[in-house]
Amino acid sequence: MRIAIDAMGGDLAPKEIVAGVLAAASQYSDAELILVGHEAQIRSCLSSELPVNVRIVHAEDRILADDEPVRAVRRKKDASMVVAARLVKEGQAEAMISAGNTGALMAAGLLIIGRIPGIERPALAPMLPTMDGAGVLALDLGANMDAAPEHLLQYAVMGSIYRSKVDGMEKPRVGLLNVGTEAMKGNEVSKAAYALIEQAPIHFVGNVEARDVFARNCDVLVCDGFVGNVMLKTMEGTASTIFGALKQEFTRTTFTKLAAAVLKPGLSRFKKKLDYTEHGAAPLLGINGLCLKSHGSSDANAIKNGVRQAIHALKNNLVGSIAAEISGK
Amino acid sequence: MRIAIDAMGGDLAPKEIVAGVLAAASQYSDAELILVGHEAQIRSCLSSELPVNVRIVHAEDRILADDEPVRAVRRKKDASMVVAARLVKEGQAEAMISAGNTGALMAAGLLIIGRIPGIERPALAPMLPTMDGAGVLALDLGANMDAAPEHLLQYAVMGSIYRSKVDGMEKPRVGLLNVGTEAMKGNEVSKAAYALIEQAPIHFVGNVEARDVFARNCDVLVCDGFVGNVMLKTMEGTASTIFGALKQEFTRTTFTKLAAAVLKPGLSRFKKKLDYTEHGAAPLLGINGLCLKSHGSSDANAIKNGVRQAIHALKNNLVGSIAAEISGK
Repeated sequence: MRIAIDAMGGDLAPKEIVAGVLAAASQYSDAELILVGHEAQIRSCLSSELPVNVRIVHAEDRILADDEPVRAVRRKKDASMVVAARLVKEGQAEAMISAGNTGALMAAGLLIIGRIPGIERPALAPMLPTMDGAGVLALDLGANMDAAPEHLLQYAVMGSIYRSKVDGMEKPRVGLLNVGTEAMKGNEVSKAAYALIEQAPIHFVGNVEARDVFARNCDVLVCDGFVGNVMLKTMEGTASTIFGALKQEFTRTTFTKLAAAVLKPGLSRFKKKLDYTEHGAAPLLGINGLCLKSHGSSDANAIKNGVRQAIHALKNNLVGSIAAEISGK
Repeated sequence: MRIAIDAMGGDLAPKEIVAGVLAAASQYSDAELILVGHEAQIRSCLSSELPVNVRIVHAEDRILADDEPVRAVRRKKDASMVVAARLVKEGQAEAMISAGNTGALMAAGLLIIGRIPGIERPALAPMLPTMDGAGVLALDLGANMDAAPEHLLQYAVMGSIYRSKVDGMEKPRVGLLNVGTEAMKGNEVSKAAYALIEQAPIHFVGNVEARDVFARNCDVLVCDGFVGNVMLKTMEGTASTIFGALKQEFTRTTFTKLAAAVLKPGLSRFKKKLDYTEHGAAPLLGINGLCLKSHGSSDANAIKNGVRQAIHALKNNLVGSIAAEISGK
């Protein structure tokens, strides 16, 4: 298994990326890890020789957080993310991981690695937090702003395969994000998608409301990228507003400070549970090669976990399973 | 000013509705309040004679919470909500308020009272909570599941008129709900709507992300009913999940119970602030008569506040202002 890691992507690159890869290398000796990025900068993060299962592929350039995605991928041919994608395309790696510009990674996946034959639109599929900790794989959360019913059907199938192959679920429950649970609820796209998904050979549990996601009444949540992204940002905004207000309340008087000190450990645990960035890297499903997006603020631990996720998905043949299902083989 | 109140709509009808109307009647003696509903049931809620500015219009039937909206409005011609809408249509009342079935109220507004000439789609416009307490008028939050760019433009104009006429804002900031703040973000509908709203004679502040709503970076938030409803339910779900977990944490041990007792008053105040049902009734904008939706769990106080809102909107000629703006007069 060869996994290419974009050493230059993310807020804490290259230091934390390199540290994460080194930690992963010692833990997963059967994987070959390829650090893609500026060699001198990568080497300056090393205190000793590279382990035998890590190598560097030099890339002169990098894609920045505010680069326009498609243009950056097309023009910066020597950027670390682009070079990593090329390694996957050319079969020199089976997977890539990047904590860089999300839009650029989607563009690199689409334009360089390409789609699985038969997949019309790839989907970004992060794990949303749930109270029981098991999470809901939500897709698409932003790869495509406009989705036709047929695309939502493909998201449903890909999400179901992910949960069964990668998470070992026997019969993952697939729900369609909607404004009510009745079958005929929603806009034109969701009504048409409902009729299509209902016919698919997956365990469709019908429409799901956004407020029920935390209770995990499904394992896969299907939505278009626009609505999904609004939902994700509403979750973030609501949670950070509430935690911000709590903090203010907790520091109001000496009494409240004392009281807060008692409650803090439990609240921190809970806050971490709700933070979707704690739930690992998000796969870009539908790309003809494993492509994982780590959060922009990923530290060494997040990168190590990303490598673990990639190894697990490769061992369970995620991409091949999606390809087989879509082609009907 | 004559205001028809659906005495039979909502979880606490008719008792709390009648109590709210009586309280409003004594406070706003210049308004004529019409309780529409089953006369005997309304009278059973009274302990004395009706005040001079309250009268009853009998309606034999009522629309239930789980009635199919359009069918119920068409078939139950003697339902309190339908009779109230007819009073507005026939000019016997200038406004109506109901805490009943939201879908049915939208249908009654549309099918019985009708649209303002030139308005293609009415919009449900509740006030979303913000940290500063001033709120953001969001529309549409569920009247129409599919909105064309032209409809979003009309929502923007109606929302702006509401904030300036009813809330006295000089230059209400109108934002378009989107997945990023840059002009070319979003799906096809939002991109086309951006271009239209930009040309409108209102103070358009561009795209707004859902996570920034609580900080009130706009006064009017424009979105289609599907996305808006998902956003609203995500807010509800996230907040209730967090408050539920807090409660659990607070009751874990004797120490945490003591600590929680110190923090509770502040948290309750904050929780109330975040609860959008505390922010009054939601107008159904674009209907040719004032039509207000009170929350289903409205108590007497909520109904009294609804009457106050209706009086304020009538005095400021909300409906006439929208009609004038749309017809270009």
